[in-house]
Amino acid sequence: MAAVEYRDMIIVMQRNASHQHVENVVSHVHELGYRAHVSAGEETVIIGVIGHSRPDQLQSLSDLPGVDHLLPVTKPYKLASRDFSPLNSLIQVEDVTFGSDEVIVMAGPCAVEDERQLWETAAAMKEEGVRILRGGAFKPRSSPYSFQGLGVRGLEMLDQVRREMGMLVVSEVLSEDQVEMVCRHVDILQIGTRNMQNFALLQAAGRSGHPVLLKRGMSATLEEFLQAAEYILANHNPNVLLCERGIRTFETATRNTLDISAVPVLKTLTHLPVVVDPSQATGRWSFVGPVARAAVAAGADGLLIEVHPRPTEALSDGAQSLKPARFQELMIELRAIATAIGRHIAPACESVSSASA
Amino acid sequence: MAAVEYRDMIIVMQRNASHQHVENVVSHVHELGYRAHVSAGEETVIIGVIGHSRPDQLQSLSDLPGVDHLLPVTKPYKLASRDFSPLNSLIQVEDVTFGSDEVIVMAGPCAVEDERQLWETAAAMKEEGVRILRGGAFKPRSSPYSFQGLGVRGLEMLDQVRREMGMLVVSEVLSEDQVEMVCRHVDILQIGTRNMQNFALLQAAGRSGHPVLLKRGMSATLEEFLQAAEYILANHNPNVLLCERGIRTFETATRNTLDISAVPVLKTLTHLPVVVDPSQATGRWSFVGPVARAAVAAGADGLLIEVHPRPTEALSDGAQSLKPARFQELMIELRAIATAIGRHIAPACESVSSASA
Amino acid sequence: MAAVEYRDMIIVMQRNASHQHVENVVSHVHELGYRAHVSAGEETVIIGVIGHSRPDQLQSLSDLPGVDHLLPVTKPYKLASRDFSPLNSLIQVEDVTFGSDEVIVMAGPCAVEDERQLWETAAAMKEEGVRILRGGAFKPRSSPYSFQGLGVRGLEMLDQVRREMGMLVVSEVLSEDQVEMVCRHVDILQIGTRNMQNFALLQAAGRSGHPVLLKRGMSATLEEFLQAAEYILANHNPNVLLCERGIRTFETATRNTLDISAVPVLKTLTHLPVVVDPSQATGRWSFVGPVARAAVAAGADGLLIEVHPRPTEALSDGAQSLKPARFQELMIELRAIATAIGRHIAPACESVSSASA
Amino acid sequence: MAAVEYRDMIIVMQRNASHQHVENVVSHVHELGYRAHVSAGEETVIIGVIGHSRPDQLQSLSDLPGVDHLLPVTKPYKLASRDFSPLNSLIQVEDVTFGSDEVIVMAGPCAVEDERQLWETAAAMKEEGVRILRGGAFKPRSSPYSFQGLGVRGLEMLDQVRREMGMLVVSEVLSEDQVEMVCRHVDILQIGTRNMQNFALLQAAGRSGHPVLLKRGMSATLEEFLQAAEYILANHNPNVLLCERGIRTFETATRNTLDISAVPVLKTLTHLPVVVDPSQATGRWSFVGPVARAAVAAGADGLLIEVHPRPTEALSDGAQSLKPARFQELMIELRAIATAIGRHIAPACESVSSASA
Repeated sequence: MAAVEYRDMIIVMQRNASHQHVENVVSHVHELGYRAHVSAGEETVIIGVIGHSRPDQLQSLSDLPGVDHLLPVTKPYKLASRDFSPLNSLIQVEDVTFGSDEVIVMAGPCAVEDERQLWETAAAMKEEGVRILRGGAFKPRSSPYSFQGLGVRGLEMLDQVRREMGMLVVSEVLSEDQVEMVCRHVDILQIGTRNMQNFALLQAAGRSGHPVLLKRGMSATLEEFLQAAEYILANHNPNVLLCERGIRTFETATRNTLDISAVPVLKTLTHLPVVVDPSQATGRWSFVGPVARAAVAAGADGLLIEVHPRPTEALSDGAQSLKPARFQELMIELRAIATAIGRHIAPACESVSSASA
Repeated sequence: MAAVEYRDMIIVMQRNASHQHVENVVSHVHELGYRAHVSAGEETVIIGVIGHSRPDQLQSLSDLPGVDHLLPVTKPYKLASRDFSPLNSLIQVEDVTFGSDEVIVMAGPCAVEDERQLWETAAAMKEEGVRILRGGAFKPRSSPYSFQGLGVRGLEMLDQVRREMGMLVVSEVLSEDQVEMVCRHVDILQIGTRNMQNFALLQAAGRSGHPVLLKRGMSATLEEFLQAAEYILANHNPNVLLCERGIRTFETATRNTLDISAVPVLKTLTHLPVVVDPSQATGRWSFVGPVARAAVAAGADGLLIEVHPRPTEALSDGAQSLKPARFQELMIELRAIATAIGRHIAPACESVSSASA
Repeated sequence: MAAVEYRDMIIVMQRNASHQHVENVVSHVHELGYRAHVSAGEETVIIGVIGHSRPDQLQSLSDLPGVDHLLPVTKPYKLASRDFSPLNSLIQVEDVTFGSDEVIVMAGPCAVEDERQLWETAAAMKEEGVRILRGGAFKPRSSPYSFQGLGVRGLEMLDQVRREMGMLVVSEVLSEDQVEMVCRHVDILQIGTRNMQNFALLQAAGRSGHPVLLKRGMSATLEEFLQAAEYILANHNPNVLLCERGIRTFETATRNTLDISAVPVLKTLTHLPVVVDPSQATGRWSFVGPVARAAVAAGADGLLIEVHPRPTEALSDGAQSLKPARFQELMIELRAIATAIGRHIAPACESVSSASA
Repeated sequence: MAAVEYRDMIIVMQRNASHQHVENVVSHVHELGYRAHVSAGEETVIIGVIGHSRPDQLQSLSDLPGVDHLLPVTKPYKLASRDFSPLNSLIQVEDVTFGSDEVIVMAGPCAVEDERQLWETAAAMKEEGVRILRGGAFKPRSSPYSFQGLGVRGLEMLDQVRREMGMLVVSEVLSEDQVEMVCRHVDILQIGTRNMQNFALLQAAGRSGHPVLLKRGMSATLEEFLQAAEYILANHNPNVLLCERGIRTFETATRNTLDISAVPVLKTLTHLPVVVDPSQATGRWSFVGPVARAAVAAGADGLLIEVHPRPTEALSDGAQSLKPARFQELMIELRAIATAIGRHIAPACESVSSASA
């Protein structure tokens, strides 16, 4: 049954813990339905707790007299774990496959602003070989007075581009109420950093069966990130893309600090594809290129990049948006790096690639 | 109109910026509808942007040639600001007033588990002079396999205690769908740390008009915290209690790091009452007492404390729950500290206070 | 022998580790001179490593095939540990005792600037009952172009105040070369946050036998803090005062984030006295008072507070310095809080206390 | 004169500041010897402070009535700034040039342990085309009971390898007393993360004129990092290599969090070469490769990598050391990535390269 968390636990006793303390802990362990394995070290006694444990309950054993602290031994997620599926998961979105040798570049405006901006960007992206267009219709903003996106109208504009230009679309969903509606218009649901632990939303996205791009919370550990993914997986939706987008640190030169080692760490811990968002991570277009190159070199399975035809007129995050011409240059660099590590990125359309050659 | 963000901005030019660069920036500023004020320093030129600015748009000016960086001058929140209301807001929840000389202690179990646990705790709390009972019915948990609370049944149990014992109740709401229903059963809606930027929920809580205890996001700056509160205030609900509950740092000895200076900083920046949760902040019952005392000494208007009659049997966060007897001792200490700084905490009921005297 | 680190270690095997993997690890453990204790859980095998272990060597076992990770069980410090000395250490500096029921307030200017500033401050402090004057002669500054202190002349000025006014003095030492010289002029050597892991300096301070006020590194864990203290203790100097002065986080409203729970955590882990520096922690004089009160309420054994007769003229850290009149008010508040928790702070001199009464 | 810090400052007044408040601030600004430029915005008055300012003094203006906060406008370092030297500095260490199109790989053991380990590693590195051998003789360790390095004997062993094998050597110096002696044995002085703000050491390293590899403090901002470099530069030593080695965050899956965007940010702010240490950053050999590749892709001018012939026997940091065979594979990958971005890495010696071809 999926709803049991497998977690062995070790109880470390205090140095001055008495024999009686140890016996008392062991009897509590038995009462909770587990086996206990006592082992005396040079300085301390440790007690292994064996069984399908509920960490909620075991945690409280730390209060018993003589107990110093608890050490969890196994991982608090299961379906997301490499142990569960040693091979890379291939997540299929129409004709695009995440998790293979191809590195998938998703790009487009931070927010959908108007027809002209969207179509211009979409056309430029398509020429560059981009098959998945990003674009925010519902924008989560720190301030209630900032531009919050075009909402449903933005989704409909995305949907029209999708149908007429034959592109796929990824766009953010902000609440469980919207899931069904957003699914009708987009190919991949994006769950943003502020909602990584919005469990109602995760479960609704899980039930939808739609591919989900889950962004890491800005202060989430990788273990918590995988547990958030587990909420989607446990609702019978295996189509999860993990997205590293920078974490919060004391450094102020960049908007966030991209955790580049999250890429190899996640590839070790889980079978799910790993995507990197260099735009959110850095907050400055001039740093997006180097960091995007780093992500591909580190082994990312995809990228999510903000592009705007006229960044200085952008209603949201203009400072971190690339112009199409710079994006084109970046794609050439990224293809070279992908090739250097034995992977590839979709080529630009012929007219363009011959022009840029 | 409330929906305008007031923010003056300064544009700092690069040291090698030309006269033409400056003129270009000024003309962009004018195009966006603001006035510009140029001032030449020893090393740099700065340009003040004056007007009711939309930071979304101004941000993009950082891309213009010759611009080094932007400096926001005024605050990105308004209704929450001390400037808006120099006097402390008094938030009334039935007969309890937050923001006055009285320090309000809210206490109870992390999660409602069963009738016996709830009633036993409620009775002990009431004897200690506690008028607001805390208790989680919907529990946000990192793992989908952890105990998620009793849900609606838990709310009904709380409601019954509320009516029969004449206590007020604070309990968490996890999604905007639940707001209406939770409002029927509890006196104060709690919005948890993971949902501090769940804007759909903040807005729904705002529309409800119900008092809201808003917890600081575990990696939110105080500025973001106040902007989150602004989402509730801007929906015409002035009844917001801010709760500091620890932030995430590199330190591992405690579950989070209580930001004690958040208390005086918030009291300076805002007129809203400030509450501290020492249980979530520390994660260990033995640290709850010292940190609770510190919070009162620092000027907190209230406390939120987890109490469980039998912590080792708790289904959630037992390790950080006080037993009623220890809670009683703590209340005596807290009353002494409140008195030392010219405030007070409700006394224990007579039978008890005479026993403990 | 002191120079052996006691640390039991647990090796957690991967879920798919074979019997052969386990045997291989066990034989490596034996080769390194330890005993191994194998225990099979529901999911994983764990191997306890028993003996006087050198974590340097054991760490490398994590590379053996089939090993998932290592878990240290015991603490990496010894003389600093509560286990080593269950009673509070009383650190005697002339007639002042740290670690008793008295809370010791040390105060004075951030930097010694001139005769007038120093004597004026010292006189005001003495009237307030302060027996230990703080004052920096050597100032560590982020920028080479900032005021670096008066150096030896500053020390001599402090020494003269010390002799003529009968006060004790604490001042910072920046390098092992200076230790002997600084010891001749001051009663307590301060080692600053940037030097918490300057091991040459720690060892020299240890050899001096002089009382040492050791500040926590701005990103040091409490475990590392205690290991730094261990460097002093292991050089046969038991006179160590630990000073929490704020850690670095993402919050920008304050200079650092005071880790208030460090007080009870340290009092649990170690027998050494714990001092708090609210001036460095907050960086703003208006937050110093609330945070100082919190520190006393949380159980700090001492405080280190910056005072300047004319903060707007200060050459260093004026923004966080209290004026003497505000310091006087604060001392009255602090005495009340100390009393409320059964401790005390030295009274002001009679002339003053009668005036302020 | 180098000892003046250029920093324009802006004073932001409170919204309710009176005309008198503004005049008072202006007169204080004049008294300190600067010019003031007053500018009234929609909501606030700001006052520009113009002149060669001492931030130590200006900071205290924040205490004047009506002042809300101060905003520094220019950078607190000068010689390290790109403004000072728009072209990349080329740092020459014998025949090796940092800052050019070549990416310099430095490699070797964390600590020098014995003759066999050192010579074996050096020979393997040399075959791989590595011209600079790393190896610690003095090891800064959190615990006084951990292996502290072979000290002078380790240096002598490195020196012998240097002479006999014709390699260059980089090794850490822990205190200003050691600088002269270490300079006699090594080509590049390494200053470690814990000593980034050990100003006595920085100044001594500056005076030595020797090339210095300066590691970023584990919680230092990039601005502080550049100010630390400024201490060396201001002592007339232009030969500074900046090394990003990971910062401290809440994430526990890696030893530190490599700040990959530090590479492009530093390349923007300064003309000094930027080196990355993926071994310290990750703490696990299996993550070193991906992160090293990312560093080259992001534009790093060099790498510092730990290699050990038998990691499981290493006395220090075995878990993060590559075996020579893995290092060889990594070098092939790194050369491919360098080529992809138009740079290059020295080839392996012929015998090896033909074998690996």
